[in-house]
Amino acid sequence: MPETNHQILLVSRPKGAATAANFRMVAVPLAPLAEGEVRVRNHFLSLDPYMRGRMNDRKSYAPPQALGEVMQGGTVGEVVESRNPAWRPGDTVVAMFGWQEYGVSDGSGMRKVDATKVPLSAYLGAVGMPGVTAWYGLHRICGPRAGETVAVSAASGAVGSVVGQLAKRLGCRAVGIAGGPEKCRYVVEKLGLDACVDHKAGRLEADLGAAAPDGIDAYFDNVGGTVLDAAMLSMNAHGRIAICGAIAGYDGQPLRMANPTLILTSRLRIEGFIVSEHMEDWSAALEELGGLVAAGDLKFRESVALGLMSAPEAFLGMLKGRNFGKQLVTLI
Amino acid sequence: MPETNHQILLVSRPKGAATAANFRMVAVPLAPLAEGEVRVRNHFLSLDPYMRGRMNDRKSYAPPQALGEVMQGGTVGEVVESRNPAWRPGDTVVAMFGWQEYGVSDGSGMRKVDATKVPLSAYLGAVGMPGVTAWYGLHRICGPRAGETVAVSAASGAVGSVVGQLAKRLGCRAVGIAGGPEKCRYVVEKLGLDACVDHKAGRLEADLGAAAPDGIDAYFDNVGGTVLDAAMLSMNAHGRIAICGAIAGYDGQPLRMANPTLILTSRLRIEGFIVSEHMEDWSAALEELGGLVAAGDLKFRESVALGLMSAPEAFLGMLKGRNFGKQLVTLI
Repeated sequence: MPETNHQILLVSRPKGAATAANFRMVAVPLAPLAEGEVRVRNHFLSLDPYMRGRMNDRKSYAPPQALGEVMQGGTVGEVVESRNPAWRPGDTVVAMFGWQEYGVSDGSGMRKVDATKVPLSAYLGAVGMPGVTAWYGLHRICGPRAGETVAVSAASGAVGSVVGQLAKRLGCRAVGIAGGPEKCRYVVEKLGLDACVDHKAGRLEADLGAAAPDGIDAYFDNVGGTVLDAAMLSMNAHGRIAICGAIAGYDGQPLRMANPTLILTSRLRIEGFIVSEHMEDWSAALEELGGLVAAGDLKFRESVALGLMSAPEAFLGMLKGRNFGKQLVTLI
Repeated sequence: MPETNHQILLVSRPKGAATAANFRMVAVPLAPLAEGEVRVRNHFLSLDPYMRGRMNDRKSYAPPQALGEVMQGGTVGEVVESRNPAWRPGDTVVAMFGWQEYGVSDGSGMRKVDATKVPLSAYLGAVGMPGVTAWYGLHRICGPRAGETVAVSAASGAVGSVVGQLAKRLGCRAVGIAGGPEKCRYVVEKLGLDACVDHKAGRLEADLGAAAPDGIDAYFDNVGGTVLDAAMLSMNAHGRIAICGAIAGYDGQPLRMANPTLILTSRLRIEGFIVSEHMEDWSAALEELGGLVAAGDLKFRESVALGLMSAPEAFLGMLKGRNFGKQLVTLI
């Protein structure tokens, strides 16, 4: 057993964009386990856009990430030491140990998962929080019917890629929005969406109108800002918009909505949600998503950064859309 | 019988604010009734904010008001001549004859009402379209529970005054927003709301925060713009906002939403609606509202302009908030 645990702490809050200087890596000794405790070696860290929001010290749905503490976040790993009869070395687990090599728990907050049919890393993506986020927003807020058009932003990402593929399975026309031709090609050719619009091409409204010739009935938004504005212009009467993320505004940019009058004139329903408030749907969603991934019917893609030290840069790159698919850090 | 019917036509579309020059009064001969037709003498015309939207030639939920045609709108009146066995002179009716002294119909679009327990004019207000609008938005979108705080803008108006009083009856704290101290006094002292904030006083956010010390759980918006922005800042998590009107933007002002990120961080649900798309609720709503008005349990107030010729100025004044309560024009 190694004697040291490396961790990444948040040491300052961003003023504007987050930078590497907001983080610091430290090495701390591994303490012996107390009776009932379990030690997990983390294999993958999940990097997610919501973490940027928690770096700010302002009112939001979750308390801010504390300064001087390990960056919080989802992890998957393997039990390496146990003084708890419910857990055995070799057990593969999903937990929230954050940006560090090892985590210790009394078992609470840990969930045993089967890594034989679904790759362990997928429990941080399509078969984890991002997948359930997609499932919830699509089913519970967008509620699309077969034949309707569903649009989704960040369509090649961890959440968006699941939204688009589930929409196709429901018999909808699925239109992605993504940044750049490579991501758009992937969304159509690999994920099987009907069309994908490149929001970096500079003519989003027109391109979205062309990609959704019958208008958009449901829009799953991960971005906010001008992308949301453009989607609203294409919404059909009685359209539903699930607000899942606002990555465009995480650095504190004023993000106004250009034309809220459309909510009235198009009788739209717009609803924000966070998936952790809807635990009642998790097990059904995870079962469905796990089955689809195991059968090869739900595709996903990962950007994997190597080693704990790479986590800050990988995280900052993800906020700028430099990742391609679910952003992970591997520690093994 | 007189031989002439006076009418007000829309003759041009507003560029910016509507003006009296957009309207023209004409006199046309009364044609003899055909078999099956009914002639109604209009007693009151309803003036409603939605009419301003229909004066524009742009996509909205209703086709634009045609140029050269009688201004459309709700009316109440009395059958004065009938060649239809289902209708008799003296019958009091609600219809959509628009801005004119007489209307002719084969009976379609007309509804007989009892003017003995409820004043005839109320069928254009608390026991008519505005009342059902309030009922629908409050019950079907805001869905407040006893003990929650409900806020409503244009709180002394035809819709807002019903929203506030129904919210009180549900056991909610009801907070009005209105323009000026006189309207605010009326909202609290006569309508019985718990508080009313004057949006003309220049400190709407702070005043609303003070009037809703536990935050706002449901907001019924008739105004849009900066009033909606202020209300959003006070919304509690999982708050519901019914978007019923956007009178602040009818003249084409760009009405941006200042902080749409709140939809996500406060997990809000915002929904626009028009009551004419929800006919399934009208009869239950009208029955409840009629009973409350007849029993003196639902108060309302009217601004009545005298004579058809006064309709344009009364309408323009209403758009500026110069009315106090439901704006009508009396023709008798």
